[in-house]
Amino acid sequence: MKSFASDNYAGAHPAVLEAVAAANADHARAYGADPWTERVEARLREAFGPQARAFLVFNGTGANVLAIRAAIGRASAVICAESAHIAVDEGAAPEHVAGVKLMTVPTADGKIEPADVEARCVRLGDEHAAQPGLVSISQSTELGTLYAPDEIAALAEAAHERGLALHLDGARLAHAAAALDLPLRALTTDVGVDVVCLGGTKVGAIGVEAVVFLRPDLAEGVPYLRKQSLQLASKQRYLAAQLDALLEGERWRELAGHANAMAARLAAALDGVDGLRITQAVQANVVFAILPPEVTERLQRDWPFYVWDPATGEVRWMCSWDTTPDEVDAFAADVRAALAAATPAA
Amino acid sequence: MKSFASDNYAGAHPAVLEAVAAANADHARAYGADPWTERVEARLREAFGPQARAFLVFNGTGANVLAIRAAIGRASAVICAESAHIAVDEGAAPEHVAGVKLMTVPTADGKIEPADVEARCVRLGDEHAAQPGLVSISQSTELGTLYAPDEIAALAEAAHERGLALHLDGARLAHAAAALDLPLRALTTDVGVDVVCLGGTKVGAIGVEAVVFLRPDLAEGVPYLRKQSLQLASKQRYLAAQLDALLEGERWRELAGHANAMAARLAAALDGVDGLRITQAVQANVVFAILPPEVTERLQRDWPFYVWDPATGEVRWMCSWDTTPDEVDAFAADVRAALAAATPAA
Amino acid sequence: MKSFASDNYAGAHPAVLEAVAAANADHARAYGADPWTERVEARLREAFGPQARAFLVFNGTGANVLAIRAAIGRASAVICAESAHIAVDEGAAPEHVAGVKLMTVPTADGKIEPADVEARCVRLGDEHAAQPGLVSISQSTELGTLYAPDEIAALAEAAHERGLALHLDGARLAHAAAALDLPLRALTTDVGVDVVCLGGTKVGAIGVEAVVFLRPDLAEGVPYLRKQSLQLASKQRYLAAQLDALLEGERWRELAGHANAMAARLAAALDGVDGLRITQAVQANVVFAILPPEVTERLQRDWPFYVWDPATGEVRWMCSWDTTPDEVDAFAADVRAALAAATPAA
Amino acid sequence: MKSFASDNYAGAHPAVLEAVAAANADHARAYGADPWTERVEARLREAFGPQARAFLVFNGTGANVLAIRAAIGRASAVICAESAHIAVDEGAAPEHVAGVKLMTVPTADGKIEPADVEARCVRLGDEHAAQPGLVSISQSTELGTLYAPDEIAALAEAAHERGLALHLDGARLAHAAAALDLPLRALTTDVGVDVVCLGGTKVGAIGVEAVVFLRPDLAEGVPYLRKQSLQLASKQRYLAAQLDALLEGERWRELAGHANAMAARLAAALDGVDGLRITQAVQANVVFAILPPEVTERLQRDWPFYVWDPATGEVRWMCSWDTTPDEVDAFAADVRAALAAATPAA
Repeated sequence: MKSFASDNYAGAHPAVLEAVAAANADHARAYGADPWTERVEARLREAFGPQARAFLVFNGTGANVLAIRAAIGRASAVICAESAHIAVDEGAAPEHVAGVKLMTVPTADGKIEPADVEARCVRLGDEHAAQPGLVSISQSTELGTLYAPDEIAALAEAAHERGLALHLDGARLAHAAAALDLPLRALTTDVGVDVVCLGGTKVGAIGVEAVVFLRPDLAEGVPYLRKQSLQLASKQRYLAAQLDALLEGERWRELAGHANAMAARLAAALDGVDGLRITQAVQANVVFAILPPEVTERLQRDWPFYVWDPATGEVRWMCSWDTTPDEVDAFAADVRAALAAATPAA
Repeated sequence: MKSFASDNYAGAHPAVLEAVAAANADHARAYGADPWTERVEARLREAFGPQARAFLVFNGTGANVLAIRAAIGRASAVICAESAHIAVDEGAAPEHVAGVKLMTVPTADGKIEPADVEARCVRLGDEHAAQPGLVSISQSTELGTLYAPDEIAALAEAAHERGLALHLDGARLAHAAAALDLPLRALTTDVGVDVVCLGGTKVGAIGVEAVVFLRPDLAEGVPYLRKQSLQLASKQRYLAAQLDALLEGERWRELAGHANAMAARLAAALDGVDGLRITQAVQANVVFAILPPEVTERLQRDWPFYVWDPATGEVRWMCSWDTTPDEVDAFAADVRAALAAATPAA
Repeated sequence: MKSFASDNYAGAHPAVLEAVAAANADHARAYGADPWTERVEARLREAFGPQARAFLVFNGTGANVLAIRAAIGRASAVICAESAHIAVDEGAAPEHVAGVKLMTVPTADGKIEPADVEARCVRLGDEHAAQPGLVSISQSTELGTLYAPDEIAALAEAAHERGLALHLDGARLAHAAAALDLPLRALTTDVGVDVVCLGGTKVGAIGVEAVVFLRPDLAEGVPYLRKQSLQLASKQRYLAAQLDALLEGERWRELAGHANAMAARLAAALDGVDGLRITQAVQANVVFAILPPEVTERLQRDWPFYVWDPATGEVRWMCSWDTTPDEVDAFAADVRAALAAATPAA
Repeated sequence: MKSFASDNYAGAHPAVLEAVAAANADHARAYGADPWTERVEARLREAFGPQARAFLVFNGTGANVLAIRAAIGRASAVICAESAHIAVDEGAAPEHVAGVKLMTVPTADGKIEPADVEARCVRLGDEHAAQPGLVSISQSTELGTLYAPDEIAALAEAAHERGLALHLDGARLAHAAAALDLPLRALTTDVGVDVVCLGGTKVGAIGVEAVVFLRPDLAEGVPYLRKQSLQLASKQRYLAAQLDALLEGERWRELAGHANAMAARLAAALDGVDGLRITQAVQANVVFAILPPEVTERLQRDWPFYVWDPATGEVRWMCSWDTTPDEVDAFAADVRAALAAATPAA
């Protein structure tokens, strides 16, 4: 099966599997006291700066909840986009496990702005109101859009001047960095991000994410929080080996860049086609489009993908590290054919 | 490195790695809607009975917390041994994430008895007291001891007649079933266990556990609880493939049985040696012993293992699926030599 | 000091104080096993129906959180108005203590509609999405508006047909029932409400609220939840005596009705005054209005009241059981004078 | 009814009621911005030192949970006696609301010792183990015993040198201070206590407790935690007035001292009586004794009191501020008569 459903439908890159197999020799100390973890931590310090403190975890929801718990302090609310993964796709885990309220901001493109932060900070010091302690952004966003570095810097400034920290959900940070042709730190450390969740799973891992604290004080006590948040792997070498394979020579950049290119190719192939409207700027590895529901249904018989908004008929087509140009072309042709078949001749 | 530190220090069995590699083809639906998950669920129904409902998770703490959340209902306390993993090695995750109190029972051998359940149920109906809703046992226990099936049945009866459910932490259930030469269901389904956490990691997986509900009503809503408890893997096929490889032809039985045999071999080799006392019945894959601290320190230079109780000098020597007879013999020889060297000539 | 700040600024009605004093004789069983509690429970069954099960608690936030915990089941989200007290004035207690997400609905008047419930129920059965288990409405709303009984019935139907329960935050239910000239049950039991938080504090008590379950199955285990939610009073007779005094002969109706009348008087006195716009229908005991900030500041020197929305200059003037016509008239005169002084002569 | 069941069965002292009535004039700012709160805060600074920061709350469980939340930091466990109120009588609220594990210490007399703290601190720095962040003691204890000031100082030292804070559950601190004839600060501020829960309810209030932070940094953010912990009273003046009446001229000392004297009188009257054994030192306002169950049953027909331990027949007789010498004498006579009637003539 090939699909445009999710980068989670894709398998693992061969280099990841090889790294896991190579790690499978001998005994190794459990819970991260192993050479693979040491090496991946070094790579992450190289990528994010010498002060970075990284913690490997199982999945994106675990990473985000751990980051929130560590960074929220005594505050109790997180400002984020209404479309943020933490807000819509984590089953109320931030609320239940971290005990926080999400102050959501409606957005057209998944991106929040300094004015949104300001607008959510009107009741600072009022004991009846949940107090925001964190601004959370996604890069790339759930809608496949990107923050420019100076946009992140402006959010960091808006957050910091009110005493809030800035969290970046980077489940697809690889795709953003590849699209913008920037080093990871140009989108994080250098522009004031305090804690990053760096995704491996969506860019070719079996399953691994890293919570990277760029403000070291936020990392205090995190080993305990990780354990308590059910995110401490016993045989951690296998998580480390995966991420190591992706970080080696910035392999992630090539894989994410390829996925981005496939989305661009798909968008280009469908540009201007009658009966279809691309709804978001295609900046990373996903295309959002509105097309007639009957066309969607026809296409889904052969190509698994998700309807994003049943009310408008908006669909999501996501490309992966392993999506091929041929698949894109074949899918685009099917889309066009289905649209044509659905359009009554004038 | 080889060690007697933990079965978590061991790597993955080759069949597990092969299964993971074999699963790495093509796209597959995420979050468990894949053929590997389907197959492992079928195997688990075969093992535990047709009513069993299984949920794969990342690790043992995640499995236990999910089981507790699902099975505790409106009650708020879990009765367990003072030495239980949930009580001493899960970083207060049951308290923080499941919101429960652990009513711990001091034991000599890690096993609780029906009278302990009865003794903890004296304030049922008293609104000031946390209400027990679950009895939790480990099989094999943290101390390497085993419950006989009728002992579990008696605990189930004691629990059920008071309206409590019975949870079995089976991080090493494989070892228990191998040691007792019984099918999994003889230790669970057939003796009244309501929910089992079946471990894969300690018996040769990279990292996978299954929460298996034997009372189907307890499984209601568990997909949401798993997600919220940060335990839903996106590329779940890789978890499923691991467990599938272990369940195939009861491979776990061979691997766990081997680990048990190595512990027995170690115990036999040290039986009656001067200056050393084995403190627990060696029924599964671990040997507990008390020896002089200076001997322990000497041995730890070459062989990583844990001091279990600094106050008494008790140590834990754990065998794994990959421990070899030669390693056992070499280690036993070193233990004897170190003891002899430490003992002043008369 | 007299004020239009909040009905919490008002003191207790003399009958409430007398009831407390009268309860202060002799010993009484603690934690609600006292005659006062028995009597108030009987009165509440009379008011809400024989199946009603009531639990006294300390304050409104405690009442709402307890109701949510009892009624949410295994679901994890509550649908409510963006302006709901649980959403904006309870310091993330629903999130932290009940572990739920609030799915908020923007509204013009604080009232949600069946279509809002439907719109929030698009991802039922999707394990990634928080599952709504409760619809929560306020009556009267935070904006002083009222639901008609058939509006509540329609919401109940919308909730129930999707398996959700309906919660009514009745911190000012007295004011609603007085305004609509209806018995309490016409706004609750008879129109499908499942659990009511009935406020005493804002209608003349020192401090007492009741959580009244109209669906008795939801009340199961609530004594434990109340204790655990920090809402069990040891000398509960004093809470019961207060509420009893308010329920006796429907004293609450007279007190709330008076507060409503004072708000109507204030609105009438300011109707059509230049420079001031009343922004919400005045249906209960509060007037919302927009006026120039400098006028607001001038008035606040003599009359404490709250700015509701600094962005628009909207203010809230709340009347209490003890607000007098003279105070209303004096305040209205001051408002007019301040507005006139602020308006440049043409 | 008069009873020896609990000091919660007693009513409120007339001075408390008068203070409440006196506070019932005019409007007052809500949520603690009132003159009564200001005055009681001043009195508490006088009692505990100028750095003390006090927060009024509804009840003892609320006070303890708030204190734990504020003082635990990133740690996750509280060391306390097995008999502590937080451990046995708060319905798992510390676990559910504060998310902490209680590391309980078996004691003969309800008092823990520095060695207990040391023994619970063996796994500091081990990420798998819940990390103790707080030592919690009760004064007087649940068993009516007292810590001498130097015993508290030694516990504070044991806690502080390991980075733990010291919490004192002072639901009956009044009784301890009266019994020891010491100022409040001699048992708290002066001996290293970091946060005190000062009880009013058991010494003559309707219902009020204060959480007093002696280390001001622990009080940071507590207004938000109090709100979120459901413990912020809207008409707080009534809580403040109660506590003010008790603090005025140290009225609490007289009331608690009287209760203590009544317990001493009861103990003296029963000393050496055949068939009864007093099981704890009678140092505050309670007598624990073991007597034959049939005698207990006979006595309970006329005098409500609790069986503390059904296994041993131990009962608890608690005296209150309003217990009279005549009641004590009558009760003691009944105890003696019942014992005599139950003893077969030789």
